[in-house]
Amino acid sequence: MASKIRESILEALSSSDNSYFSGQELADQAGCSRTAIWKHIEDLRSSGFMIESRRKKGYRLLGKTDELNENNLLVGLKTETLGRSVLFLESVESTQKIAHRLAQETAPEGTLVIAEEQVSGRGRMARSWHSPKGTGIWMSLLLRPSLPPQKAPQFTLIAAVAIVEAIKDKCDLDVDIKWPNDLLINGKKVTGILTELQADSEQIHSLIIGMGINVNQSAEDFSDDIREIATSLHIESDKTFSRAGIVQEILSNLEKYYAVYIKEGFEPIKEIWEKYAVTIGRQITARTLNKEIKGFASGITNEGVLKLIDETGETHLIYSADIE
Amino acid sequence: MASKIRESILEALSSSDNSYFSGQELADQAGCSRTAIWKHIEDLRSSGFMIESRRKKGYRLLGKTDELNENNLLVGLKTETLGRSVLFLESVESTQKIAHRLAQETAPEGTLVIAEEQVSGRGRMARSWHSPKGTGIWMSLLLRPSLPPQKAPQFTLIAAVAIVEAIKDKCDLDVDIKWPNDLLINGKKVTGILTELQADSEQIHSLIIGMGINVNQSAEDFSDDIREIATSLHIESDKTFSRAGIVQEILSNLEKYYAVYIKEGFEPIKEIWEKYAVTIGRQITARTLNKEIKGFASGITNEGVLKLIDETGETHLIYSADIE
Repeated sequence: MASKIRESILEALSSSDNSYFSGQELADQAGCSRTAIWKHIEDLRSSGFMIESRRKKGYRLLGKTDELNENNLLVGLKTETLGRSVLFLESVESTQKIAHRLAQETAPEGTLVIAEEQVSGRGRMARSWHSPKGTGIWMSLLLRPSLPPQKAPQFTLIAAVAIVEAIKDKCDLDVDIKWPNDLLINGKKVTGILTELQADSEQIHSLIIGMGINVNQSAEDFSDDIREIATSLHIESDKTFSRAGIVQEILSNLEKYYAVYIKEGFEPIKEIWEKYAVTIGRQITARTLNKEIKGFASGITNEGVLKLIDETGETHLIYSADIE
Repeated sequence: MASKIRESILEALSSSDNSYFSGQELADQAGCSRTAIWKHIEDLRSSGFMIESRRKKGYRLLGKTDELNENNLLVGLKTETLGRSVLFLESVESTQKIAHRLAQETAPEGTLVIAEEQVSGRGRMARSWHSPKGTGIWMSLLLRPSLPPQKAPQFTLIAAVAIVEAIKDKCDLDVDIKWPNDLLINGKKVTGILTELQADSEQIHSLIIGMGINVNQSAEDFSDDIREIATSLHIESDKTFSRAGIVQEILSNLEKYYAVYIKEGFEPIKEIWEKYAVTIGRQITARTLNKEIKGFASGITNEGVLKLIDETGETHLIYSADIE
């Protein structure tokens, strides 16, 4: 009941920009007393919603701008768990680093760390990731699945599918997945995913999915060398997007696919992933730490490992590589 | 050359209990000048060796008792890397916890954390591990292999083989391996291994192998309920052992098998492991988090996962379970 009243209040308050709603209106809509409304407004405030109250006018939701803040991230969020505990920060070294610290301090599953700016964002192989202020989504999501560590790399692929579909729905753009962790539009990188874990041999203790998405950058925001290889949702569509809206869609998708994964295993997600993957069904070159293998990418294993058939017909399992 | 002189000095000093060696004697033996000897003695001291020097008498190595300390651990250590950087502590919460912290602070591969006592030692599944003062080996070894996280569980098996053979050589006792991480003598637990990792999807950042070995406990040192299931090297042989000697042998073995693994892969180690494993080739019951499977343990996969064939002939891959 309590969460229904809460939803009813949020729905009303976010249905119109800048309008006030009286306690009586909200109470009628939710089917409860004005006292109950008052109590729930207090609860909502303590969960981070900025709700203004004025005598004789009523309640109004603040901060419904494209700004990123905890309020914008929570209003309209449809998930049960993911992103329900959110830490929004203006400027951080890297959201991964903070998420790791929170993970060790028993933060719950679904905790999201998100920042306006990362001053030393990281990609895979400790490569740096350009994360300028106010234009992208730089976030790290903490999960605590009861799974062995061998399964962790699958989560990069689950996240990839969730992001591809969020961008499709929110921005009407087609995104390709490049194994293992890049999302491309027209051949240029728009998103990177970095899944990290703490585990023992049998069980994952914490899994941290870092996601960096170029959203509203214009071409001039990229330096010449980055412009060659990277793009943003804005550059590709000439539109400006609500970052909070995209984050919410990603979290919804992730929650949905996470549930599918736990119930049915990796197989159904693998099928979707392969549909979006440009790496599969092609002749590619995989550069690993100590060698280079050319061959036909025939698919991924049930653990998310790339299968490459070389010219002698031998199948190689590629755990980590740069693909060309 | 420098390391040869160092070895020559250590060999001489540890060849006799409580005797002094003059700088000239050491210089003759090492084939260098007395000044060089003096310099190397200083170096040895700064690496943790306690060397006394007295006028007219010469140099003498201190602390060659069965006490555990950095000195005893380093004198006679035959490895190149493992245990070369050692942190010895009197009493800790858990050596794993400290090793994790050191791992994040860029401690080098081979760093060993070892303690006289753990007040809250942990086993697998966050179970507690009884680690009383002065009687056992409670240690955590940091490795940084360039491997994907899927390979991490293999290191529990590599460590198991290294420990079984060290106990065989040093104590002349036969040890059985119970998958995944227990070592048994006459059906009772003498050692537990806990491998933990920090990684991303493609690469292990740090791998921490925790090892707890009951060495010199007598039966009275165990409470009634623990005595039912646990034993010590002393109880099984009626002898008292040098813990430093066992640690050194384990590190030597681990270094040897680690090199084999990096060069030739897991296959040769798997063969040795299966030879010592009581779990394999038997009807067993595997209790996982959410079910119980009975069947024939046919072996382990190349990733260290247990293969169990049930009565319908179906093969189950067991990543984590209690085995009976």
